[in-house]
Amino acid sequence: MKYATVNTEDGPLYGVVVEGGFIALSPDFPQWKTLRGVIEAGALKDLAQAAMGRDVTHAPGSFTYAIPVPDPEKIICVGVNFPDRNAEYKDGQEAPPNMSLFIRFPRSFTGAEQPLIRPPETPQLDYEGEIAVVIGKGGRRISQADAYDHIAALTLCNEGTLRDWVRHAKFNVTQGKNWDNSGAIGPHLVPFTHPAQLDDIRLTTRVNGELRQDDRTSRMLFPIRRQIEYISTFTTLVPGDIIVTGTPTGAGARFDPPRYLVPGDEIVVEAEGIGTLTNTVEDE
Amino acid sequence: MKYATVNTEDGPLYGVVVEGGFIALSPDFPQWKTLRGVIEAGALKDLAQAAMGRDVTHAPGSFTYAIPVPDPEKIICVGVNFPDRNAEYKDGQEAPPNMSLFIRFPRSFTGAEQPLIRPPETPQLDYEGEIAVVIGKGGRRISQADAYDHIAALTLCNEGTLRDWVRHAKFNVTQGKNWDNSGAIGPHLVPFTHPAQLDDIRLTTRVNGELRQDDRTSRMLFPIRRQIEYISTFTTLVPGDIIVTGTPTGAGARFDPPRYLVPGDEIVVEAEGIGTLTNTVEDE
Repeated sequence: MKYATVNTEDGPLYGVVVEGGFIALSPDFPQWKTLRGVIEAGALKDLAQAAMGRDVTHAPGSFTYAIPVPDPEKIICVGVNFPDRNAEYKDGQEAPPNMSLFIRFPRSFTGAEQPLIRPPETPQLDYEGEIAVVIGKGGRRISQADAYDHIAALTLCNEGTLRDWVRHAKFNVTQGKNWDNSGAIGPHLVPFTHPAQLDDIRLTTRVNGELRQDDRTSRMLFPIRRQIEYISTFTTLVPGDIIVTGTPTGAGARFDPPRYLVPGDEIVVEAEGIGTLTNTVEDE
Repeated sequence: MKYATVNTEDGPLYGVVVEGGFIALSPDFPQWKTLRGVIEAGALKDLAQAAMGRDVTHAPGSFTYAIPVPDPEKIICVGVNFPDRNAEYKDGQEAPPNMSLFIRFPRSFTGAEQPLIRPPETPQLDYEGEIAVVIGKGGRRISQADAYDHIAALTLCNEGTLRDWVRHAKFNVTQGKNWDNSGAIGPHLVPFTHPAQLDDIRLTTRVNGELRQDDRTSRMLFPIRRQIEYISTFTTLVPGDIIVTGTPTGAGARFDPPRYLVPGDEIVVEAEGIGTLTNTVEDE
């Protein structure tokens, strides 16, 4: 089952995506304004049940994808989480003892099949393909052993970055990671029910068909179980929170000369069992 | 007029603080769930009007302060924003061309007169006294000339930090700045109506009565007008957003040996015309 949030003539709706289009379900569940509420209530299955035997309400072309959870309390991103990514920094430092974390605002992401926006201030728009996990059960100081029990669903992220703005200041990557509509999350949520959906999954990013990033979740420096343990040490995770789990080597900035995105490019992030996130690029 | 959000026996309420206590006004304005909604509607004045001639609804002792805007879309903090703070890093670097920014979650803050929580994982809880501005009118690419028109109100922040966790990883300060209830915002919002309320204001932090931080907003490396201009370059500011504008030299980590906070300490952040933010410290 694939759960999505879409924009339509009638405004934003959530529901499920099937082969022939989209089945709107949010009108049947006024108690939950967005998929965050559904997840908080542990009710993704209720949506699945309601969709059974239902006709498509919106044919392809009559809706566009939004971020699946449009209103998460927080989106936390893990940086430098694949072995070669650390080596890419060429600063002679060993792999760090703890993961780098940064925060993105929901408005820095658009939905699937929407353009990433390149602003006039810099031409250095870059892609980063990632797997994102959506928290189902909240908690603090969650153990690695229990971590997977706190994940409700999986999705994909193109963690689009304005590369020169990442190093604009003395510390922190905030301003390179938070341009409006510079990244994407989606297209849909896949319920997480088994460790095999995360433990050793192939993750790729293609630009105009060319394979640029290609790695497996089993090679993460900080596995997802550890991410949940570490993050929940300092902050209480709540339902709907999104953790963007890190990108493999091969972003455009790593080429010599760098290969940044330009209008017309098509970026496809794909992970086995989760889906395919496609975006184009447009100048603002 | 001082606008506040408080917790009471009847749950959270917003209203105004007067000499004899708190006047609850949120029951009169069901259209606005929190002060964010009031600010979005440009209706702080309506609250002031409604409070006129009204009796106190909650005497001192029958309410506790919460964060004035409990549900901001974003809280953006400016780092290393006073001259001596940059020198403190002793890395031989000149003042940077752009401001360092990081993001805090609302749940990392408690209200005035509440304890900052020192977690069992580290004893390095530190204070940082700051002025916080609350955005009234949203916008993108706001000029410095227009910046002040976008501020609805002012308040104070103790931008409490778990110092060793700021440098836990290769990049970013996220995890040292986001421990649940490690900082505070409040006690109340003061409407911003004149540049003189911000341009050259004395800001102090005292620990157990001892003056530790003492500087003036006129000495900021990146003045507040510039902060609004720079931040709104990449992200759309919306009503209720909070910018925490930077702390003077003199945090506990800068002493030799460092002087971290311990249970029983009292920290008082004060700024002319804005108010006094007092917090204690408790072990979790």
